[in-house]
Order: sequence, then structure tokens, then C-alpha cells
Amino acid sequence: MTDPVKAMPAAQDPWAAWPNATQRRIAASALDSFAERGFHGTSLRHIAQGSGLSTAALYVHFASKEEVLFALARHGHALALALVREAAADPDPGRALDVLVRAFTGWHAEHRTLARVVQYELGALDGDHRAEVLDLRRQTERTVRDLVGRGAAAGVLSVPDVRAATAAILSLGIDVARWYEPGGRWTPDELGAHYAELAAGLLGMRDPGRHRMPDHG
Amino acid sequence: MTDPVKAMPAAQDPWAAWPNATQRRIAASALDSFAERGFHGTSLRHIAQGSGLSTAALYVHFASKEEVLFALARHGHALALALVREAAADPDPGRALDVLVRAFTGWHAEHRTLARVVQYELGALDGDHRAEVLDLRRQTERTVRDLVGRGAAAGVLSVPDVRAATAAILSLGIDVARWYEPGGRWTPDELGAHYAELAAGLLGMRDPGRHRMPDHG
Repeated sequence: MTDPVKAMPAAQDPWAAWPNATQRRIAASALDSFAERGFHGTSLRHIAQGSGLSTAALYVHFASKEEVLFALARHGHALALALVREAAADPDPGRALDVLVRAFTGWHAEHRTLARVVQYELGALDGDHRAEVLDLRRQTERTVRDLVGRGAAAGVLSVPDVRAATAAILSLGIDVARWYEPGGRWTPDELGAHYAELAAGLLGMRDPGRHRMPDHG
Repeated sequence: MTDPVKAMPAAQDPWAAWPNATQRRIAASALDSFAERGFHGTSLRHIAQGSGLSTAALYVHFASKEEVLFALARHGHALALALVREAAADPDPGRALDVLVRAFTGWHAEHRTLARVVQYELGALDGDHRAEVLDLRRQTERTVRDLVGRGAAAGVLSVPDVRAATAAILSLGIDVARWYEPGGRWTPDELGAHYAELAAGLLGMRDPGRHRMPDHG
């Protein structure tokens, strides 16, 4: 049986779908610099140097460092939304939630630097850009909330408050980006499996074992 | 019956225990600037202006903006540790965890700006300072882990992995600082109550109602 988490292409390489190779280099360099010095401590020169381009060449692709941050933030949020939607498409809400928590948690461990920069520097985005990113975030939240609501309506899970349970499920995954370091106790997959089991308890899931994939550790 | 969460003085005013009033003004001004511009975007002049002091007067108290960030980070982490220790001192592990999650979650909602700055700018601390803050963090984690372990040993709760459950409980509370905005759906107390109920499920707590305080919403 195919592992539905591993089958999600978005979980593998966050840059794979980025259409332009030069922009990809610029974005990767900006990510490193934002992670190291913060958005406000980063200059276009830092980004140009890290990508092996002149600042003039960089301006062909991005008008400002805010444009690069926006590209990163939109990309990161779009990937997370795609992953959540793909998991939520499963008609069985219990299995969908198991896959969703595993994939969402594992993704935040694997791509912690992208996730951290996107979360921590959200305040630096211009109004329009910020609104677009917050809209992606609202869509992610709505997808999870609808799924939790569907599971509650079907009697598969039992939560006192659908919105609070949704916030908790998202927090479990997102906060992983803050503290996870590779080479520690768990691989991203193992952590995802642990958190899916804990989330099943949090959601008052009946018979969670039924939903688990065979490779669940 | 006294509410053990409300009885915790640390949860009320994060600056109450700060010994020096001028330093308190400086720290509050630095917090505003770090939250608005980031650590790297903040100059000592910003901090001085916000506190109504000259930069010369500021130097009497702090040698650099890193010193101010360290003071904030140590203070915030020490408050969180005190709160967690006070809750964990209850000999009943189920009641202790209920109080701990309520207080820890509510604290991160109430003091989200302090918590955000402390989390987001941790990388800007000098080696020694960072080590001291990470030690406070480890003590908080150990306190929660010991409590979860004690509850599991007593059969009050059932978790597949004590460390993963500890990480999840801490994430639920800490991540609140990222997304919580006042004036929304829940007060800090209400959110704390919701999260304590969800945490009881996550921890596989038997008969969680027994541990609840009468005012639990």
C-alpha cells in the first residue's frame, strides 16, 4: 500500500514547482540571510552575494527584498495549503486527519527554515502582500476546520469546540518549525507519526487504529 | 475555592518583579521596538527614544541592545518556568497538568508580544546568554516531562511517548503567542480552558472532569 504522506510531492522539495531557476537561487539565498540576520538585517547586497548575482541582475527579478520575502511567504503558505487540501480530500475524516497531521507536522520539521522565516517575518510584508498570505492561511484553517467539523458530525471524533481543536492541530504542526533540529531524537516522519497519535487523542477519535497506515511507527 | 491559575502572581504583570523601574521602562521600550522592527532593525536610539531617556542614560543600565534582549529573554523564560513549576508542585498529576496547560496557554495569550520577541529573536543572543536562556528552557521542559512521566506511572494518563507528549503540550501553549490577538473569540482564560480540555484528550487522561476547577468554562 502506498504511503499517502510520502506520495505528496509538495512534501519533498519545496522549490520543485518554482518556475524560474534564477529566482529559485535568489529565493534560497534570501531565505538563508533572513534566517541568519532577520529581514531587517538583510540587504539586497546580502541576497545578491549569496546567489552569485549582481544586485543589478537581482533587480530584474525582484524590485525589493520585500518582494523576495513575499515570494517566499506565498510559496511556503501555498505548499502547506496544498498538502492540507490533499489530505482532507480523503472521504474518511479519521484517516484524512491522521494523514493531515503526519504530513503537516513532518513538513514543518523538514522545511523548518522556510516555515520559521515565513512565520517570524510576516509583519514585514506590505499590506497587499500580507493580505494575500493571510488569505492562504485562512484557507488552510478553513480546510482543517471543515474536516474536523465533518469528523465530529460523523461521530468519528468528539471535540468540545471545533475551532479550538482546529487551532490546536495547526499549532502542533507549525510549532515544530520553532524547535525541531535534525539529527535529534526523531526524523520528520517519526515525529509526524507521534503527533498523529497524540492528535487522535486530542480529537477524541474513536478507534484511531483503524485509520493508521501500516508503516505507522 | 481559589482558582490556582488566577492565584499565580507571575501570570498577572510580567514586569512586577523587575527590580529597577528605569530598567523596566527601557525593557518595555525595547520590547515594542523589537516587536515592530525586529532585533536587527532596532538601534539603541530607538530604545532610548521610546523610554524617554538619552542613549547615554541608557548605557548606565545596558551595554548594548543585545543586553536588553537578554534581559527580556531571561525574564520571560524565568516567568514561564516559575508558572510551570508552581503548577507541577500539585501532588495530583492530573490536576497539576490541567492547571499547567491553562496557566501556560493563558500566559502566552496575555503576554504574546514578550513571548514572540523572546522566541523569534533567540538567535540574536550571544553564546553565553543564549546558553543561559536555553538552560531555563530545558528546566521548563524537564518539569513538564517529569510531571507527564509521573502521571503515566500513576496510571492517571496514557501516552505512547512521554517526550513527544511533553513537546506537544509545550507547543500548544507557546504557539498561542504566534496567532493570538486580543478582542477575538476567546479571552486568555477561555482559551486556556479549551486547551486544557484538549490536552486531557491528548494525554489520554482518565476521568479528566475530576481534576477541573469549578469555574472551568
